[in-house]
Amino acid sequence: MENQATQARPLFNKIVLIGVGLIGGSFALSLKKVRAVEHIVGLDRHLASLESAKKLGIIDSLSDDMATAVADADLIVIATPVAQTGKILQAIYPYLQARTIVTDAGSTKADVVAAARDSLKEKFKQFVPAHPIAGREKNGPDAALADLYVGKKVVITSVAESLPAAVGVVAQAWKMCGAIIHYLSPQEHDQVFASVSHLPHLLAYTLVADIAAKPHADRLFQYAASGFRDFTRIAGSSPEMWRDISLANREALLQELDSYTEQLSKLRQSLVIGDAQALELIFRRAQEARLNWITAIEAAEAQSKDGGD
Amino acid sequence: MENQATQARPLFNKIVLIGVGLIGGSFALSLKKVRAVEHIVGLDRHLASLESAKKLGIIDSLSDDMATAVADADLIVIATPVAQTGKILQAIYPYLQARTIVTDAGSTKADVVAAARDSLKEKFKQFVPAHPIAGREKNGPDAALADLYVGKKVVITSVAESLPAAVGVVAQAWKMCGAIIHYLSPQEHDQVFASVSHLPHLLAYTLVADIAAKPHADRLFQYAASGFRDFTRIAGSSPEMWRDISLANREALLQELDSYTEQLSKLRQSLVIGDAQALELIFRRAQEARLNWITAIEAAEAQSKDGGD
Repeated sequence: MENQATQARPLFNKIVLIGVGLIGGSFALSLKKVRAVEHIVGLDRHLASLESAKKLGIIDSLSDDMATAVADADLIVIATPVAQTGKILQAIYPYLQARTIVTDAGSTKADVVAAARDSLKEKFKQFVPAHPIAGREKNGPDAALADLYVGKKVVITSVAESLPAAVGVVAQAWKMCGAIIHYLSPQEHDQVFASVSHLPHLLAYTLVADIAAKPHADRLFQYAASGFRDFTRIAGSSPEMWRDISLANREALLQELDSYTEQLSKLRQSLVIGDAQALELIFRRAQEARLNWITAIEAAEAQSKDGGD
Repeated sequence: MENQATQARPLFNKIVLIGVGLIGGSFALSLKKVRAVEHIVGLDRHLASLESAKKLGIIDSLSDDMATAVADADLIVIATPVAQTGKILQAIYPYLQARTIVTDAGSTKADVVAAARDSLKEKFKQFVPAHPIAGREKNGPDAALADLYVGKKVVITSVAESLPAAVGVVAQAWKMCGAIIHYLSPQEHDQVFASVSHLPHLLAYTLVADIAAKPHADRLFQYAASGFRDFTRIAGSSPEMWRDISLANREALLQELDSYTEQLSKLRQSLVIGDAQALELIFRRAQEARLNWITAIEAAEAQSKDGGD
């Protein structure tokens, strides 16, 4: 249905994509695939990334001039490490027309919403905070995929001021990428992702860094196998991106980290005193919870393939 | 070469497989595939597992009588949770002939070697401790695969008393499963795997158990995505098996856990004081070390496919 509508008239004449890496690049490729956009202008700190993105068909043209790029845009998408969002919104503000929608793809939302409120002032209502729950361990435009978001969740954390029409357009764009839209408040979002995403990243980075710092690291890595590979896959993620996420979501992340280390310390004590029953109980609870989760996820995926929204 | 030799005469007339789950079952299927064995007798605590194993062609017959099973065996393979090894070896001892080789597939080795020394007494030289570095998140005979060990490492931790001929036969059997043989002392083995396998299992189990215990666990799991799935894959492993491993390798595991929590506590402090540089440095070191590791692993795999050992 959406597909047919876009064949008649694309949803967007012009999108400005700020940050042309994995996340922004995949969004662009997805919209181009369904012909939802006429022209995408790319901006990026790294000229080499812009050139790659143009070669890969992610963007149609590149620019380093915010004023010209932004002037007649339908949609501006910020897909950079989250710490840059405020500065970019400040640069956009003077040129932002009333009809233009601004959105982002950052992994933290309370800080982004606060930065947008400060930077965009009376135009804050045009900003739609969003977070696509998808990724790969590779970064940059080369890693972008036209089907990265198919069947994946996008969390929109719009607030009281957000223009409903703007929220609707951003939701429609993500649906055209194949994503499933969820709504949470920025605070709910940040608590949830501190727990199931940000903390695991910290734990995986710390394990690899700890092993790498040991004098016999080479021997240790030699015997690391598939379990280690999967456990540490997220430690292959962008250090700058995760530095920003960690700091932006510091409060919720510290809370989750402290809850986790408390559990780990209990487990350590069971190990010290050789409490086999306590160890097995923790392992069994985890195994069961994970199995239930996987079963639910797979059922939901099967249902969404059967034609649900 | 080995393949042709086995077509003439199988390496083993009779193997006794004690524990017919993922690890033992895959060993059996692998040897059957290259016709390296005439007959496999299965023993297991669970009759249902024995029946499955027989239906799946893992074993040719089943038994609950150690005396008869062991009497004319060429090879006895113990593939049970490690805490059972001592008890099983004691049961084998009275019936163990001088020409029979005994081996195991346990994930810890110092405890297994100690149990074997105690249980097998003057026959200890016939015991070859081994650990195949392969697994899946599923358990039981249904999970067994004939190619589970192809290209995977098997660590043999033979000691001064081990009969060189017995070590040679066990190494040959694993090579016929497609595995690559490594040799470490039991202590070296346990330190290495505490670091790259046992600790990650503890960390993953603890994360899932911690989340599952929260009042809003359902919402949290709802937003867990592919990073979480990979990070926690090993938390799907057998609770009993990992209870035994944790206790058997307690000393080395506690050492690794304490080293890890020290690093985690440093990272926490960087987060508390908002030290962006320190955070990024840890993340970058981890990312680089992991990339180097993956590159080395992939190069080794490519080489082994090109016709190495």
